[in-house]
Amino acid sequence: MTRLTEAARGVYVIAVTPFEENGALDLESVDRMVDFYEAAGVDGLTVLGQLGEAPKLTAEESKLVVERVLRRLDGRLPVVVGVSAPGLAPMQELATAVMGEGAAGVMVAPPWTIKTDDQAYGFYQSVGEALGDTPFVLQDYPLTTNVTIVPKVIDRIIKDVPNCVMLKHEDWPGLAKITALRASSDKGETRRISILCGNGGLFLPEEMGRGADGAMTGFCYPEMMVGVVREHVAGNLERAAELFAAYLPLARYEQQQGIGLAARKYVLAKRGVIKSGALRKPRPALSALDIADVERLLSAQAKRLAEIGA
Amino acid sequence: MTRLTEAARGVYVIAVTPFEENGALDLESVDRMVDFYEAAGVDGLTVLGQLGEAPKLTAEESKLVVERVLRRLDGRLPVVVGVSAPGLAPMQELATAVMGEGAAGVMVAPPWTIKTDDQAYGFYQSVGEALGDTPFVLQDYPLTTNVTIVPKVIDRIIKDVPNCVMLKHEDWPGLAKITALRASSDKGETRRISILCGNGGLFLPEEMGRGADGAMTGFCYPEMMVGVVREHVAGNLERAAELFAAYLPLARYEQQQGIGLAARKYVLAKRGVIKSGALRKPRPALSALDIADVERLLSAQAKRLAEIGA
Amino acid sequence: MTRLTEAARGVYVIAVTPFEENGALDLESVDRMVDFYEAAGVDGLTVLGQLGEAPKLTAEESKLVVERVLRRLDGRLPVVVGVSAPGLAPMQELATAVMGEGAAGVMVAPPWTIKTDDQAYGFYQSVGEALGDTPFVLQDYPLTTNVTIVPKVIDRIIKDVPNCVMLKHEDWPGLAKITALRASSDKGETRRISILCGNGGLFLPEEMGRGADGAMTGFCYPEMMVGVVREHVAGNLERAAELFAAYLPLARYEQQQGIGLAARKYVLAKRGVIKSGALRKPRPALSALDIADVERLLSAQAKRLAEIGA
Amino acid sequence: MTRLTEAARGVYVIAVTPFEENGALDLESVDRMVDFYEAAGVDGLTVLGQLGEAPKLTAEESKLVVERVLRRLDGRLPVVVGVSAPGLAPMQELATAVMGEGAAGVMVAPPWTIKTDDQAYGFYQSVGEALGDTPFVLQDYPLTTNVTIVPKVIDRIIKDVPNCVMLKHEDWPGLAKITALRASSDKGETRRISILCGNGGLFLPEEMGRGADGAMTGFCYPEMMVGVVREHVAGNLERAAELFAAYLPLARYEQQQGIGLAARKYVLAKRGVIKSGALRKPRPALSALDIADVERLLSAQAKRLAEIGA
Repeated sequence: MTRLTEAARGVYVIAVTPFEENGALDLESVDRMVDFYEAAGVDGLTVLGQLGEAPKLTAEESKLVVERVLRRLDGRLPVVVGVSAPGLAPMQELATAVMGEGAAGVMVAPPWTIKTDDQAYGFYQSVGEALGDTPFVLQDYPLTTNVTIVPKVIDRIIKDVPNCVMLKHEDWPGLAKITALRASSDKGETRRISILCGNGGLFLPEEMGRGADGAMTGFCYPEMMVGVVREHVAGNLERAAELFAAYLPLARYEQQQGIGLAARKYVLAKRGVIKSGALRKPRPALSALDIADVERLLSAQAKRLAEIGA
Repeated sequence: MTRLTEAARGVYVIAVTPFEENGALDLESVDRMVDFYEAAGVDGLTVLGQLGEAPKLTAEESKLVVERVLRRLDGRLPVVVGVSAPGLAPMQELATAVMGEGAAGVMVAPPWTIKTDDQAYGFYQSVGEALGDTPFVLQDYPLTTNVTIVPKVIDRIIKDVPNCVMLKHEDWPGLAKITALRASSDKGETRRISILCGNGGLFLPEEMGRGADGAMTGFCYPEMMVGVVREHVAGNLERAAELFAAYLPLARYEQQQGIGLAARKYVLAKRGVIKSGALRKPRPALSALDIADVERLLSAQAKRLAEIGA
Repeated sequence: MTRLTEAARGVYVIAVTPFEENGALDLESVDRMVDFYEAAGVDGLTVLGQLGEAPKLTAEESKLVVERVLRRLDGRLPVVVGVSAPGLAPMQELATAVMGEGAAGVMVAPPWTIKTDDQAYGFYQSVGEALGDTPFVLQDYPLTTNVTIVPKVIDRIIKDVPNCVMLKHEDWPGLAKITALRASSDKGETRRISILCGNGGLFLPEEMGRGADGAMTGFCYPEMMVGVVREHVAGNLERAAELFAAYLPLARYEQQQGIGLAARKYVLAKRGVIKSGALRKPRPALSALDIADVERLLSAQAKRLAEIGA
Repeated sequence: MTRLTEAARGVYVIAVTPFEENGALDLESVDRMVDFYEAAGVDGLTVLGQLGEAPKLTAEESKLVVERVLRRLDGRLPVVVGVSAPGLAPMQELATAVMGEGAAGVMVAPPWTIKTDDQAYGFYQSVGEALGDTPFVLQDYPLTTNVTIVPKVIDRIIKDVPNCVMLKHEDWPGLAKITALRASSDKGETRRISILCGNGGLFLPEEMGRGADGAMTGFCYPEMMVGVVREHVAGNLERAAELFAAYLPLARYEQQQGIGLAARKYVLAKRGVIKSGALRKPRPALSALDIADVERLLSAQAKRLAEIGA
């Protein structure tokens, strides 16, 4: 079984969790979604993240989703599973379960109560210890976690917690953070871990320029992330920027807190990837005005993509 | 099976969760602890609360603790179980399980992300719906949840959510809140629900004066809460105040965030209630200086209790 | 003297405060900046806002900046002055001073300690009373103030506080908020106040579509806001969107917290508007990598603007 | 002119700001209050603190209060002035003014936006630089500032910022913090600065036991702080604890956020120290029930003080 390592690169798409209109899990759409992501050229999948509506699932449902994704992929791509929990014991329980089923690694966000550098460090040290030899992704997302982790604290974690192999980078702004982390590893002071970027891909070209290895985010056109990362790796910076700009108006709209996920699922449903764009309660639905906005953005995007031959 | 109702009164003690020094669950101490609380004259128990270190337990361990408490009590006292979870589905799952085993009701704190009156109302409306006919306690503890719920929002919840039967009141300061809620029910605008007060009992005499029905907190001398509530109900306000004052220096010390729970368990272990005062990781232990403080407070408290013949 | 009213429309640009490299106020650049904004076609200026580095100025310096702007404009455009202060008395003091010098109105953000609907309402009621007949702008910027004010609270303020004539809207996401506020006034339940949008203009086309009257923000190309608002008012939605998209990559970059203002001033200095892009301490400067990012974005923007003939 | 140094000891009382019922400054009461504090045996005064309602004063009023206090004291006791401001420039402006009039030092709290160790350090480094040779007190009050500063950050500040001469310690819980800071200076790693404790004196005996030099807080019976500190210094720990316990029920009541200051001023007015207990708007007044609580606490306190011969 492939395990996540510091060498991970490319696009790990944050998968949505498909529901029926009535809120029931829609496992058939899971298969179609997995196929869609794979066809789009992603390098891995991340399930049960915040935007996978993980906290709304029962333990049993979480298990079903992970199993379904793993079975469909059949080892062709690595799968990261979000296991953030209010305490170490339930986190460990979930991690053990999903690794046993074939996940490549897990992802852990800090609890909102962390307020100091030492608390952040201590938390991830405990996480590393609790997870044993399971590789994990440090999810750094201050906008929703309320926790700020400065580069030197991440460096301390990298040094002392060997199973921390990846940073899901979504501090905002965070370009200087990538630069600082890469400076540490370039000087040989720390391991060079994988850095994949979130924030809906809104800063992807600049993040690649600073030394990121790719994206871990769920924008409804994964072809954007795949394209930008490929062009960047190939050295075609102008093309990467042009491609990025074509998708940016919609990506920006999708990055709104709360309503953004509804927009993402609306587009995925429209694209035939999932059966319904419904979120499980409690969550806002798109209004008619929101839908009109999205449709307008889709039209303009299609036009612009045609112009640039993408 | 007794179910929690609006008529609940007296002291519902917040039970600690006993661990061995090595962090393993100590179920034998659970029995002794249950006996101790019952002998102290409490009217009910609350388990798996924040100060019961609930987030550190696996699902299996949570189940074991609840079962053990229920079996030992054998229906003699009602048991409330904390079921706060990151989402409605896992909360519902846990509530169904514990009610099936014989719990009297459950307790739910709001997620820290709530920022407006309508969000707080909406959250508890969803909780009430998800819990069906399970009676629940609204835990109002801004200092740790970061969520402020004003009296008129609580009144709206009381009106619209029939299975909300109790408020665990630990806003701080919160005397005016009790007064406002009682004014609403006295005028017949809302149901009169049970109000039991937390905050380590630090404002218990004044809270009783405002119309609270008792305490739901875990101070290591439950005889303080039991005594203050009884004297108050009997109209002996001066005696209630005198008794309260004798315990106040220690109660204040125990109310410190973080270190307070360690002090509570230290005293309970010293009193022979639980085998070890250990907290499960990650949590601070008492320093030698902290222990010296506690010992000094215990001596002064014993002296003062002797003086007042308590 | 023109006073700000509910009829205000168009673009009120958030002016930067120019400093010399050594941190001294640069009043000569103030003149040039005022001329630049006027030439760009803005409808008003807002000075001493958060992004005008107001908190870093002494009382004397604040007075100098306001006087200089007012003198240069000589009444040709209205000027709004930020007067947020830790208390009502100093706020009133500053408002009285600037209105005496010829400001059109003032702007007030809520203190971060506000946690409930009633506190937000009570704060603006006190502000309205303290300001007497001075018209004021309610600045609704949760990302930096930490205060969320829901539409029905804004409606209550509009009803009860007659000198609240404008909303600087920068909730995020906030499209539904504009829709809700316009629904209230369309139904005749509230006054229709002016709504100008912030957030660096990142949602300007959609905000205009929801009923906003324009923008109040400081993006370094005010011609973007002016153009988008004009095209929108003229009904040319596709042109508005195209223009907007051309500037979006840079606008997004400039919207980064902290570093964003440095990028804004860098571009304004490069464009010859202000002498130096320096911020007053304590503030980060742009790194060489940041500058390279900005330059790349400027090139791509120039190319795209040429393509669309703008 | 006496200047504040690391050798400061004893009780620096946080002075209230007296207002007339109509909200006007009551400067005559300032004189009486200064005399009262001096007669109670305090070692210094702190004015324009958070609980001195400083943010509600105009610049002119702040000046009047400071002048009046300084004139009345005529150099007999040192005066510390709160100069916290949204930016360095206005802070420097106020500090220069009050030092020129004869203040002994100033006090600075951190802005709520600080989130990391380095930001806290950087802020106080900038403060130290801006204040030049003015000695200052670092106010560490997480409950109201939302900023947590760990001991090692305070140690860095002590090392690098020579004019930081005192810590107003009101972290909660904070006993371990005092222990850590004293360990650093005992080992010779840092200067030994003065540590005076806040939090209404609620932990004063334990804080003295950890190496604090006294109290800086405003409890309406300054004789409590003076007595506890004296007995402690004299080695009479049991007497200190007994005295403390007699005042604790009231001190606890007064420590409630918001309503606590109203209780403090109510008692000071009742004791004839200030003419009115009124707070300036916007602030809650005591209800009849609150007043009844306070009166009950005063009676019990008088009885207990008589019993112990204090």
